Amino acid sequence: MTPSLRVAFQGESGAFSESAARRLLGEPLTTVPCPTFEEMFAAVTDGSADCCMAPIENSLAGSIHRNYDLLLGSDLRIAGETNLRIVHNLIAAPGRALADMRRVYSHPVALAQCTRFLRANPHLEAIPVHDTAGAVRMVMERGRYGARVITPSVEDHAQNFTRFLLITPPAADIRGREEMRRWKTSLILRTANKPGALFRALGAFALLDIDLAKIESRPIEGRPWEYAFYLDVIGNASEEPLARALDNLRSMAEVVRVLGSYPTRW
Amino acid sequence: MTPSLRVAFQGESGAFSESAARRLLGEPLTTVPCPTFEEMFAAVTDGSADCCMAPIENSLAGSIHRNYDLLLGSDLRIAGETNLRIVHNLIAAPGRALADMRRVYSHPVALAQCTRFLRANPHLEAIPVHDTAGAVRMVMERGRYGARVITPSVEDHAQNFTRFLLITPPAADIRGREEMRRWKTSLILRTANKPGALFRALGAFALLDIDLAKIESRPIEGRPWEYAFYLDVIGNASEEPLARALDNLRSMAEVVRVLGSYPTRW
Repeated sequence: MTPSLRVAFQGESGAFSESAARRLLGEPLTTVPCPTFEEMFAAVTDGSADCCMAPIENSLAGSIHRNYDLLLGSDLRIAGETNLRIVHNLIAAPGRALADMRRVYSHPVALAQCTRFLRANPHLEAIPVHDTAGAVRMVMERGRYGARVITPSVEDHAQNFTRFLLITPPAADIRGREEMRRWKTSLILRTANKPGALFRALGAFALLDIDLAKIESRPIEGRPWEYAFYLDVIGNASEEPLARALDNLRSMAEVVRVLGSYPTRW
Repeated sequence: MTPSLRVAFQGESGAFSESAARRLLGEPLTTVPCPTFEEMFAAVTDGSADCCMAPIENSLAGSIHRNYDLLLGSDLRIAGETNLRIVHNLIAAPGRALADMRRVYSHPVALAQCTRFLRANPHLEAIPVHDTAGAVRMVMERGRYGARVITPSVEDHAQNFTRFLLITPPAADIRGREEMRRWKTSLILRTANKPGALFRALGAFALLDIDLAKIESRPIEGRPWEYAFYLDVIGNASEEPLARALDNLRSMAEVVRVLGSYPTRW
C-alpha cells in the first residue's frame, strides 16, 4: 500500500492550495493546513510534512515573492508544478435562492474579482472574511445541511490562473514523476550591475537553443540598481544541453542558484 | 493660482494610493476615490479626473497585471512614478491602550502582513474588513474623537514597498516634471515564439548600453508558449540612444508598445 503523503498548505481545508495538491498528487494524501507561508515551509523543514504546495504566481496578481524568498532561505527544492483555474462560485445552503440572499461572505480579493456579479445583484451585501474556504465553512455551519453552488463562475475574468509549486526536501522522491516527460528548471540569477549583463547571461541559453518559460527581475534589497532574476527554462539541470548552459552561465553571473528541476505537463 | 489637479485612485480616502498621489504631485490636489481599477481608468478617459495613480507592483506581492491590462486597453500613458513604503500602524481612539484592545480591523492582506505582532498579542482578535482606510474610518466614527497611532510599524517585513504609476491622457502635461532629470520608459514587447527571440530583442538595448530597470514575462492568453514582456528601460523614447534602440527593436519584434516615458527619482 502506498503510504499517505503529508502535504502542507497555507489556509484552511478547502483552500485553492489544497485543491492544487490533490490535483497534482492524487490519493492517498494527508493535508496539513498552516496559518502562514512561513509555517508551511517550516512544516517541511522540521519533517511534520513531506512536502508543501506553494502558490508562486497568479495571472492577475503576479508573482508571490514571499514564497521565492522562503525557497531561497531554505534548502528545499521545487519538485513539481500545477496550474489551477481560479473560479468563484456563489454557494449557499440547499433550498436558498439568489433572490432571498442578503449577504455574501468571502475574502476581499475574491469579492473584488466578482464586482460585475455583485453590481448586477445590488440586493447582496459583500462582507469580507479571512478566506474563501472559511466563508463556505461558516455558511455550512449555519445551514447545518451542507452547501451547494447557486451560481457558478461569478468572477469577472475567466482567465484567472494560479501556478503552484510542489516543494520538497532536497533528496525526496515524490510519486508520479515518471509519467511526465517534459522538464522545467527554475533558477535565480544575479548579474553584475552593468548594461548588457542580462543580455550576456541569456546568451548562455540562446546559444544552445534552450527555451525560456519565465523571466522576472526583482530589485535587490539595499543594493539600488542591482537585480536578481527569476528564470524558468525548459530542460533538466542534470542533462544536456541545460547542464552545459548552466556551467557557462556560472562563469559569467555573480550567483546562480538552481531551485529545482521538475516535470511539467506544459 | 495653480488649478487643483484631479487625481483618481482605487479605494477610499486614506488609501495608500492617495498618499502616493500627494507625495508625487503635492498641492493643490483633488482626489477622486473609485471602487475599482476599471472605474479609476474610466474616470481619466471620460475626463472626470485629470490623471490617476495606479499601483503597479509590490515588493512582496509582485506586479499588478490588471493595471497593465487596463493601460494596454486604453490610450492613456505613464507620466510619472513613485515608491511608497507600506507601513502598518495600530490605530485606536485616543485614551485606548494596547492592553485594553480586543479587536483589530483591517484588510486581510494587511492582517497577514502583521502575523508576528498579532501572535505576540494573542488577546487581539483580527477581523477582516474591505480596506485599511475604511478600518480607520470605522474606528474614528465609533470613537468620535479622532484616532491616533498606538503602535507604529507592526508589519512583519520592513522592506514592503509599492510602486505607483501616474497615468494621464496622451497629451496631458502634469506639473513637477521639470525638476527631475533621469527618465525611464515602460514598454510591452511581443516576440516570435522561438528560442533566443528575447535574447535578440534585448540586444537592441545592450548594443547601445541602455540599462534595463525591469523585465517580466507574461504568458499570452490563448497562445501557449508565447509571451509578452514588460520592460522598463532608462531613457526617454524620443531621445537618443533610446529612440534608435526602439527602432531596431521594432524591426525584430512582433509588437512594441511604448506605455510612456517619465521622469524618475531613481
